[in-house]
Amino acid sequence: MTCLPTDQLTQQLAFLVELDRLKSIVRQSPLINQSRKENSAEHSWHLSMFALVLATHAKDAVNPLHVVKLLLVHDIVEIDAGDHPIHATGGPDTQIAEAEQRAAERIFGLLPEQQGREMLELWREFEDAQTPEAVFAKALDRLQPLLINTLANGGTWTENGVTQQQVMERYGPVIERGSPALWEAASKRVSEFFAAGEGGG
Amino acid sequence: MTCLPTDQLTQQLAFLVELDRLKSIVRQSPLINQSRKENSAEHSWHLSMFALVLATHAKDAVNPLHVVKLLLVHDIVEIDAGDHPIHATGGPDTQIAEAEQRAAERIFGLLPEQQGREMLELWREFEDAQTPEAVFAKALDRLQPLLINTLANGGTWTENGVTQQQVMERYGPVIERGSPALWEAASKRVSEFFAAGEGGG
Repeated sequence: MTCLPTDQLTQQLAFLVELDRLKSIVRQSPLINQSRKENSAEHSWHLSMFALVLATHAKDAVNPLHVVKLLLVHDIVEIDAGDHPIHATGGPDTQIAEAEQRAAERIFGLLPEQQGREMLELWREFEDAQTPEAVFAKALDRLQPLLINTLANGGTWTENGVTQQQVMERYGPVIERGSPALWEAASKRVSEFFAAGEGGG
Repeated sequence: MTCLPTDQLTQQLAFLVELDRLKSIVRQSPLINQSRKENSAEHSWHLSMFALVLATHAKDAVNPLHVVKLLLVHDIVEIDAGDHPIHATGGPDTQIAEAEQRAAERIFGLLPEQQGREMLELWREFEDAQTPEAVFAKALDRLQPLLINTLANGGTWTENGVTQQQVMERYGPVIERGSPALWEAASKRVSEFFAAGEGGG
């Protein structure tokens, strides 16, 4: 057991209190039962379960628990920088990236220095999408809303008039890079959804 | 890379779809900003972050990522069995335990057999609270709502007229068993909260 001085514990609790705000960051995706939109905290939990359950489908071998760590941390910057939906037509990506970098430095900076640096590195690893775990985590972050949309009357696709071709273009490369097997299953569901004539595009 | 037959992937996706329902299981605890009650999915994410950040405070050495696994899975049975608040005066514990056991068998039974058995074992490990990881996970599951209550006008304590002594009795043993250091910090916050005269008891 390693004991940290009390003031480090105070810093850690302040960080954990700050994280409560991620529960109020509302995403565009609905719940499957369509009762409301999903928030980024419950989304992060759901994705972590995707990682535990689907890890063997990754294209390159991954440590499932490292994927979980990346996914637990990946949306925390949204506390300051907000959610940026896949189908949005907002500001330039560089502005978003800068806002997220500032958010990461502020929020992870609440932690004791070494721990804050480790969290910042996890977030950076996810964003850079170069390690097998980060590539797979990014794939799951696309797969989960795709799956929800096919079960929730098209969800964000119907809301935004997104066509089948746009779905294939916006989700396909990221999911397939992380897992060809999951993309095969996902693209089949997309085709079935649009074939049923429920699409908004 | 291990490839599972497609029908196993279908089972896994059915399980992950079912998990979406945990986002609609509402707990008694509020968000810290008191805008609404917390749900069990976002609670599970928050607790997983508690585990990553606070693991070195565990009484016995723990594998932080195993604690995370236990916490990601620990509330899934509530999809069928509902949440059972700490301050509730409901039915006998044996009835709750039986309902949760049935829920675990049904929900984890959606997965391919071996994976379902592993998830069931994680849930059982948490419930039995015998391993260092499960003891610490249980402590965090008490610490998080305590911390929230002290910051949200007493939260469930104020709502239920819970006294300082009852708080010490209902949270203390579980938190202290997992981490004397965290209980020392938590009990200090409880004392300060009730000394400020904001308690409902």
